[in-house]
Amino acid sequence: MFRRTVRGMRDLLPDEAEKLRFIERTAREVAKLHGYREVITPLVENYELLSAKVGEENRKRMYVFEDLGGRKVALRPEFTASIARLVAVKMATAPKPIRLFSTGTLYRYDEPQSGRYREFWQANYELFGSSKPEADAEIVSLTNNLMEKIGLHDYHFKIGHIGILRGVLNQEGVAEEQQNSVMQLLDSRDWDEALRVVRDAGGGSEKCLDTLNTLFEIKGKDPNTVTQEIRETVQDYPEALEAVRNLCEITGLLEAGGVETDFVIEAGFARGLEYYTGIIFEVYVPEMNAALAGGGRYDKLIELFGGAKTPATGVAPGPDRMSLALEKQGTIPSISGDERIMVIPVDGKLVGEAFRISLILRKEGFCTEIETMGRSVSNALSDASRRGITYVVIVGPSELKEGKVVLRNMKREEQKIVTIDQAIAELAEAR
Amino acid sequence: MFRRTVRGMRDLLPDEAEKLRFIERTAREVAKLHGYREVITPLVENYELLSAKVGEENRKRMYVFEDLGGRKVALRPEFTASIARLVAVKMATAPKPIRLFSTGTLYRYDEPQSGRYREFWQANYELFGSSKPEADAEIVSLTNNLMEKIGLHDYHFKIGHIGILRGVLNQEGVAEEQQNSVMQLLDSRDWDEALRVVRDAGGGSEKCLDTLNTLFEIKGKDPNTVTQEIRETVQDYPEALEAVRNLCEITGLLEAGGVETDFVIEAGFARGLEYYTGIIFEVYVPEMNAALAGGGRYDKLIELFGGAKTPATGVAPGPDRMSLALEKQGTIPSISGDERIMVIPVDGKLVGEAFRISLILRKEGFCTEIETMGRSVSNALSDASRRGITYVVIVGPSELKEGKVVLRNMKREEQKIVTIDQAIAELAEAR
Repeated sequence: MFRRTVRGMRDLLPDEAEKLRFIERTAREVAKLHGYREVITPLVENYELLSAKVGEENRKRMYVFEDLGGRKVALRPEFTASIARLVAVKMATAPKPIRLFSTGTLYRYDEPQSGRYREFWQANYELFGSSKPEADAEIVSLTNNLMEKIGLHDYHFKIGHIGILRGVLNQEGVAEEQQNSVMQLLDSRDWDEALRVVRDAGGGSEKCLDTLNTLFEIKGKDPNTVTQEIRETVQDYPEALEAVRNLCEITGLLEAGGVETDFVIEAGFARGLEYYTGIIFEVYVPEMNAALAGGGRYDKLIELFGGAKTPATGVAPGPDRMSLALEKQGTIPSISGDERIMVIPVDGKLVGEAFRISLILRKEGFCTEIETMGRSVSNALSDASRRGITYVVIVGPSELKEGKVVLRNMKREEQKIVTIDQAIAELAEAR
Repeated sequence: MFRRTVRGMRDLLPDEAEKLRFIERTAREVAKLHGYREVITPLVENYELLSAKVGEENRKRMYVFEDLGGRKVALRPEFTASIARLVAVKMATAPKPIRLFSTGTLYRYDEPQSGRYREFWQANYELFGSSKPEADAEIVSLTNNLMEKIGLHDYHFKIGHIGILRGVLNQEGVAEEQQNSVMQLLDSRDWDEALRVVRDAGGGSEKCLDTLNTLFEIKGKDPNTVTQEIRETVQDYPEALEAVRNLCEITGLLEAGGVETDFVIEAGFARGLEYYTGIIFEVYVPEMNAALAGGGRYDKLIELFGGAKTPATGVAPGPDRMSLALEKQGTIPSISGDERIMVIPVDGKLVGEAFRISLILRKEGFCTEIETMGRSVSNALSDASRRGITYVVIVGPSELKEGKVVLRNMKREEQKIVTIDQAIAELAEAR
């Protein structure tokens, strides 16, 4: 019992942790470059807040419990509710647009499988206050920048617009609740069941079903061709036409802005979460079925959490999956290129000196370990070699008398007697 | 209900979050400089694992619940149990010493007060495999390096050695369980109650009580004087004398190594957690009562978690408290010194161009926002000014025809017409 992590949870050992932190650091850098400021919200929130708009499927999979004060709380299954609360309550008067970034772990009681855990990581970028297509284009462009920066290749954006399907369904009189079910079914690519729900909800006219069936088939890489096809299909549905126009504006901006990446536009694309109102998108690599990032526009969310009407658009990349994608693509992010130094005292009396020298080396920015096992120099050297230490500084009494140490290049198996300043100069050159 | 965080939890708004992430980043840098590699363990662990050695007080304050699979789990109240599990199970054959770093949030149902939350941050450095004083000295020195690097001043280390008190109590026949109670009472500075427990547990000889009473009074800045006093007090207790010798070796190494910081050695100092076996220490600033970091040696822990006998020493700095200490000391870490740029298109037709230019600027590493509200240039400029934007790039049709833009220095309220390359050169100079 003691020896295992809880099912669905996992340990990240040093190499995996390093990759995850690299992705997190890059995500934070991308946030900063685009003017997004980080906020940190609690992992434990009121159950009511978290369950309000998370969607039926995720609601059932939340980690819910009572705290010692009898409050019904849960571990957050997504960031959106917390961020919406924060914007509605604590940033109500902040000048718009508000650009926010957050990152951390989320919790869902899903069936564990490759790349899916019950504790998983997410980054989150949200832009509040602008209903303009440039805000959506910024979110897509930022996502692209993140994928580029971590070193992924051959990825593509799958893009749709929830307003196209909802525009048709609204005009056909299908109630919002049924529409939500339809979107969830489409998200799991269950077209037939989705059409059945539409039929049962009063959208069973031949025209409606024909239109939806045609939309489900429309898919392509060239935004102009695809949106033209969609436009022809929904020509009798003004609200859907408006959505197509919005989608065209966004893809047009991405093109004009020189955002070079692959897009696949799908008219029948929907996402499970209920709160999307405009463009929606996901990012995929050929090596994996799961999306690396998902996002879109959700203009009514802040209102739902008690704030003023605030248009919003955002994206949530998944660092776990991005890490897996890097692995599958054989990309090793260049993280730990630094030289690693070990300082070895030749006997116990020189440990203090070894300490002093390691402090100097670290002050110069060198990653420096000190021998703490009381081993002989030769044993310590074989250990250093096994650990991938690149340089060893040996502190011995005779060299020390002249203010010198032995500097050993572990790769070349060469060593020389130098002053600390000379050692620093040589190490700096190697860096 | 929707509008509040759960009691004891909190939101970190951008300025606070930035400070916390600065401390976390610095902690990670210090880890790397000292050869500690990061691991990430789950927040949710088996209750049995977490409760095994956390101490009675913290055990009562854990967030415990059943997951949907009926497992009794809890939110971690400390890192140590998880790291011990990981070392015992997944690194059993890794070459020693093992240096590990971790950071994240912990959960305890304490009464919230200034600087104390139910969700709080901790960094964690642990060195496994060495029982030598140089390992302990490294941990103290590393802690000092972290405090320095984040910009704290006037802090001091309070240092003790659990082996002194335990050495006396062992010899007097006080059982381990009662010793643990004594340590907890001493941690809350309840000397009288501690002595009562000792008396009830068979340690009531005049010599024992005298010795303890004298030890409780011994405290001072000069390691040599203080340890000499302690040595005289416990001269009839060989195990306690051995502990004093160990303490002297550690402080001696710190002195020889040139670790310049203030120490206060206290013979009656104890820490609440049960697993300490050697040196213990905490870091304080004059402005606060709570410790900014606490650590020590715990040689039996890995065994307790089913691993092989593995000596261990470590420290856990608290980023929340360090952040509060920085604030109380009036230190503003120089985090966001970067120039912030905003690109404003003069009309809707130029948004694509503005996008293109912002991509170029970000590629050069400039933090660049783009106007996404569809505002007029003058409105966008006043917004930029309110936000502390330092440079604005205005994209207008006549300048663009010549491949140029307007670059406006917001502080000087000066602007000129330049090419993008010239703009980049000027911005780079300002950086």
